[in-house]
Amino acid sequence: MSHPTDGSCIFCKIVAGQFPCFKLFEDETTIAFMDINPVNPGHALAVAKGHWPTVDVIPTDVLGDVARTAQRVAKAALAALEPTGVNLLQSNGPGAGQSVPHLHVHILPRYPDDKVRLNWVYEPGDKAEIAAICERLKAVLA
Amino acid sequence: MSHPTDGSCIFCKIVAGQFPCFKLFEDETTIAFMDINPVNPGHALAVAKGHWPTVDVIPTDVLGDVARTAQRVAKAALAALEPTGVNLLQSNGPGAGQSVPHLHVHILPRYPDDKVRLNWVYEPGDKAEIAAICERLKAVLA
Repeated sequence: MSHPTDGSCIFCKIVAGQFPCFKLFEDETTIAFMDINPVNPGHALAVAKGHWPTVDVIPTDVLGDVARTAQRVAKAALAALEPTGVNLLQSNGPGAGQSVPHLHVHILPRYPDDKVRLNWVYEPGDKAEIAAICERLKAVLA
Repeated sequence: MSHPTDGSCIFCKIVAGQFPCFKLFEDETTIAFMDINPVNPGHALAVAKGHWPTVDVIPTDVLGDVARTAQRVAKAALAALEPTGVNLLQSNGPGAGQSVPHLHVHILPRYPDDKVRLNWVYEPGDKAEIAAICERLKAVLA
């Protein structure tokens, strides 16, 4: 299956077999491998084979494929590593901490007192402000 | 379409129209609405209509539907709110910070100097350890 590629992208090189990885799984449109800068034991990535940088430009069907591959790896992590939980994180843009501009989902097994900082304080928001933003979003929802 | 429900679950009540929400979008299997405890302006949730607590038990097709709804909301946030990025976060289990045991994806528009802590320090891992965990995961990959 043909897909867009970027010759300077490390994930495209992994997909093409030009750069090694600790591969977990591969199908027609996705690949999963271990993150070599793991924040936690079992930190893995589910990656689209095609070079689409972010969630707003990847074809919807391929995004679904990536989600299914992430699910597969998350189930394996829960079965094999017995973490206290698993986070799936997909980042878009430098402002969101995306380091490689090729869409990927982090599979993050969690352990007590680990170094992952994914949480925030739950505080009720201003209802009028939330309602106003809801209207702005609905106005552009495709 | 029938799906599992839990009478004590706040998201099931929202799906059933028994509890109000700032609704963004709805289709046969998913719903999206604003998080009323927003960490950031535009913080929204894409939720499966059925009550499946976590990624390991939700049907694969429904997970794909949730991913597509999250994509739709993320695109709207990028278009309407002009954030510096967007994170998608899906948490499984109390150890991963999951607060409502009904599968949902956080759509988190990001802004400079916001309060979201989603990042970690990138440090190379021990290759032998990564390889060993890779083998353990592959052994249980369905």
